[in-house]
Amino acid sequence: MFEGVSSPWRVPYDGSFRIGEAATSVPSPPSKKKSRKSLEASVARMRELQDVLYAQDKYAVLIVFQAMDAAGKDSTLRAVMTGVNPAGCQVFSFKQPSTLELDHDFLWRTAQCMPERGRIGIFNRSYYEEVLVVKVHPEYLPAQRLPYQVEPDLLWAQRYESIRDNELHLARNGLVVLKFFLNVSKDEQRRRFLSRIDDPSKNWKFSHGDLEERALWPKYMAAYETAVNETSRPWAPWYAIPADDKPLMRATVADIIVRSLESLDLHYPVLDDRGHARLAEAKKELLAE
Amino acid sequence: MFEGVSSPWRVPYDGSFRIGEAATSVPSPPSKKKSRKSLEASVARMRELQDVLYAQDKYAVLIVFQAMDAAGKDSTLRAVMTGVNPAGCQVFSFKQPSTLELDHDFLWRTAQCMPERGRIGIFNRSYYEEVLVVKVHPEYLPAQRLPYQVEPDLLWAQRYESIRDNELHLARNGLVVLKFFLNVSKDEQRRRFLSRIDDPSKNWKFSHGDLEERALWPKYMAAYETAVNETSRPWAPWYAIPADDKPLMRATVADIIVRSLESLDLHYPVLDDRGHARLAEAKKELLAE
Repeated sequence: MFEGVSSPWRVPYDGSFRIGEAATSVPSPPSKKKSRKSLEASVARMRELQDVLYAQDKYAVLIVFQAMDAAGKDSTLRAVMTGVNPAGCQVFSFKQPSTLELDHDFLWRTAQCMPERGRIGIFNRSYYEEVLVVKVHPEYLPAQRLPYQVEPDLLWAQRYESIRDNELHLARNGLVVLKFFLNVSKDEQRRRFLSRIDDPSKNWKFSHGDLEERALWPKYMAAYETAVNETSRPWAPWYAIPADDKPLMRATVADIIVRSLESLDLHYPVLDDRGHARLAEAKKELLAE
Repeated sequence: MFEGVSSPWRVPYDGSFRIGEAATSVPSPPSKKKSRKSLEASVARMRELQDVLYAQDKYAVLIVFQAMDAAGKDSTLRAVMTGVNPAGCQVFSFKQPSTLELDHDFLWRTAQCMPERGRIGIFNRSYYEEVLVVKVHPEYLPAQRLPYQVEPDLLWAQRYESIRDNELHLARNGLVVLKFFLNVSKDEQRRRFLSRIDDPSKNWKFSHGDLEERALWPKYMAAYETAVNETSRPWAPWYAIPADDKPLMRATVADIIVRSLESLDLHYPVLDDRGHARLAEAKKELLAE
């Protein structure tokens, strides 16, 4: 079965990840130019690998992005996936759940969007919202109309278990799950919010709710720490990527995706003798026309 | 959390169900007329309960039917669910999976059809086909293009686990899962097949493939025994209903459904003081018009 590739940013599988010690930037980072070159090379390689993934039609790949506001989710998935054949790639953004979605269990809406074999699916936010924003805002729970009263600790424990069980099931059936937490610092978020306010072309990206969520920073960090510890597993690893340097973050994400794809036994379908014989027949028929 | 109601036909949760000893008929059964009366009373009660289920909008109910050919799945679900408000009831029949469905994990196609809160969903065949017909016909597996080579025993064990985990997740989130194995005898199937062949109006129900499956009877029985033992749990019980006497089978199924619904804390939504105050206001406004 697929196993996460190694990286200094991979969240260990033993629950020892501490968000307070996790880097949001690196000392002496490569130049922005170097990061961009690296990203470019990774995207080119990804395009090749995706073509084989599609032809072989066995694995599906799910890439999950979660982050605080202004960490760079949208621009990262745009930078990383642009250049990849869109016929083999599907991006889904999950916002506030709809009435229909609330009428189902919390994994239902994303289950429908799982990528088919041979494809790469991108989740911009995901079912992890259910143990992040909903955990920070338990006042969202009543809208889910759960019939059983369960102690909060048990409720979250059950949700982590549901997610783990589901990811294991999917992994066994051929889904490669990669999860990226884009780890931005509170200072850097402040700078980016200020730039969204100062730059008229970015004003649309800012809403006053953003400050309310920012005020809950410590609660969000605690929720992220628990969520990634509870659900980072060899077959569905989390990577907590330092996000203060955007070009470096994008290059790092792209590199992990490429190495993950390279770790699969991807190859173009190989014809057996009968297949070759039928091709030869078809050629004869065409030549005789 | 919901727990299966008791019944002599409930499959125990400890793996001790033996299909060779399971009844396909009962000694001194009630008259057909008595069974029909009982069914009628249950359907009337089910209609009342469904109305509350719908109004309360907390629980969803999933009823799964699995059986050998000619056991009476279609006629049972018709008899049991006719009279129930169709706005609150959805029936899905699962046949050979489509190309799109094969492009996903084996729980994907049924996941989309899970009933919403307040509704009853009926599965005529289900994800259990994946550990019944596919287990009896392992030659169907390659079409699923699973990327990992796994020993058969481990593969089926993983599928039972996926199903158990998924049903537990769904149950915790408010889905009441009832599963009926309509247990017909090989002799009775023979009689019903003969009647399908002799009666021109029933000819369409018979196909020659039916005899090929019949020849695999012992393999199917072994697959049923393991599947129900592996997945009968308090929150998602199996009932193995004697199916040779159709009116009795239908009455038994309806009775178990009714008692299961009655075991939930179903009640019409209750208004709080604020709700009553707002109703009083609305009344005042209407009267003043």
